[in-house]
Amino acid sequence: MNAQQLFDEIRKKRSFLCVGLDSDIQKIPKHLLGTSDPLFAFNKEIIDYTHDLAVAYKPNLAFYESLGPEGMASLEKTVKYIRDKHPGLFLIADAKRGDIGNTSGLYARAFFEHFNFDAVTVAPYMGEDSVKPFMAYPGKWVILLALTSNKGASDFQYLKDENSGNQLFESVLKKSQKWGTSDSMMYVVGATKAEKLREIREIIPDHFLLVPGVGAQGGSLQDVAKYGLNKRCGLLVNSSRGIIYAGTGENFAAEARTQAEIIQVEMEEILLEAELI
Amino acid sequence: MNAQQLFDEIRKKRSFLCVGLDSDIQKIPKHLLGTSDPLFAFNKEIIDYTHDLAVAYKPNLAFYESLGPEGMASLEKTVKYIRDKHPGLFLIADAKRGDIGNTSGLYARAFFEHFNFDAVTVAPYMGEDSVKPFMAYPGKWVILLALTSNKGASDFQYLKDENSGNQLFESVLKKSQKWGTSDSMMYVVGATKAEKLREIREIIPDHFLLVPGVGAQGGSLQDVAKYGLNKRCGLLVNSSRGIIYAGTGENFAAEARTQAEIIQVEMEEILLEAELI
Repeated sequence: MNAQQLFDEIRKKRSFLCVGLDSDIQKIPKHLLGTSDPLFAFNKEIIDYTHDLAVAYKPNLAFYESLGPEGMASLEKTVKYIRDKHPGLFLIADAKRGDIGNTSGLYARAFFEHFNFDAVTVAPYMGEDSVKPFMAYPGKWVILLALTSNKGASDFQYLKDENSGNQLFESVLKKSQKWGTSDSMMYVVGATKAEKLREIREIIPDHFLLVPGVGAQGGSLQDVAKYGLNKRCGLLVNSSRGIIYAGTGENFAAEARTQAEIIQVEMEEILLEAELI
Repeated sequence: MNAQQLFDEIRKKRSFLCVGLDSDIQKIPKHLLGTSDPLFAFNKEIIDYTHDLAVAYKPNLAFYESLGPEGMASLEKTVKYIRDKHPGLFLIADAKRGDIGNTSGLYARAFFEHFNFDAVTVAPYMGEDSVKPFMAYPGKWVILLALTSNKGASDFQYLKDENSGNQLFESVLKKSQKWGTSDSMMYVVGATKAEKLREIREIIPDHFLLVPGVGAQGGSLQDVAKYGLNKRCGLLVNSSRGIIYAGTGENFAAEARTQAEIIQVEMEEILLEAELI
């Protein structure tokens, strides 16, 4: 899927919502624990109730790995289910990987060949050769961490390089632009730093941004849109816990839909106002 | 296992070798492909032939994830096999993880509870709250990336902070020392930068360093020892491809042993010379 195709999906669905499948065996409704694959059963219901409101799903690998091979099988089934039942969705492996070249190549093989994701989140610390192997797959994407939404973001991401005057996240944005195009790279930019989006948009006007941190982590969708929208929308805004754990009983998926719908309606208004739909 | 216990193992084995289990289904000897679990069969033979020469094993997660649930099952069996047959070995999940706090907590659950590793490699980009959840497990370790051995290390790790004058990897070393102790943290320092070890030892005299890049990546063991040894050895030097792919036929494990032995003998001399054994 390229950027234009993703924008087409956004216009069709009138939404730039990404649903984070941070599906924790210790938090999903109790009645699912008796099924043969509780994580998949949970994901399937969430997806069935929200697929028309979202353009992307983002399973976070940690939640599946914590169950070992069984969890990875739940992930595999989740991706296959989405591919079979709901084509057109953009699938992100939130994995934050990054290793020496040949190893990143293996992670790329894992996420793009074995699991058939569209994109994988990658940490920039190890530089170009840790990132580029993910871009050897046409139509697949790297989503590089730039400015994250957590408290620890301030430990290193704002350090200012004495030669260029750039903060570390700015160096990441600037240097990495030479590694791929706006059809093969996106960036993670935390919503808790919405005012930073203006600066970031000056550096990367065309790239899609994956924005976590709206909702549970405290960011505002209006602020994100105000500073982050570009001519092809250019935003995927993620919500995980606020949607998937909206309910805890048998009705959890309908409650998840209600929360997703609130966000989709707000997104539709934003897209209309920006004359993107 | 704490640092003293690890040092005791080093003295007992007269070795500070870590064998990297970068076990690639496309590179292991062909005769293993007919077995029910080729990656495990490969690892088992490598371990059986080298366990008395090494103090640590380091499976790289990418190689197992590239096979999906099946690969994770091979990893699970590998860890269990080492625990059952060869107690006293230090097991490192080379995963280079790092995410917001609750997610890092799930990765910790994966590697320490589910798989029963002793340590996991962690990327520092997201800062303190992405690292600390791994240290909530007594006796377990974080091995934080500081200076890596790949070409892309120069993209960001040397950027010099205009306030402190520290390069990024130095900021990582200095700031992270407050997050744990030399009994819960180690650092990855690439062997291709052996001359940098002197500076690094001034910042962290007591911590263990995990040093990749000896052999295939071009680093010298003598240089690493010269600048990196401390009073409890303080080094785990990793070799992956140089050992595990030493042979390609039915005799591969014996050939791996030969290569591991060459390194162990050199390490023994280094330890004797430093009067650590």
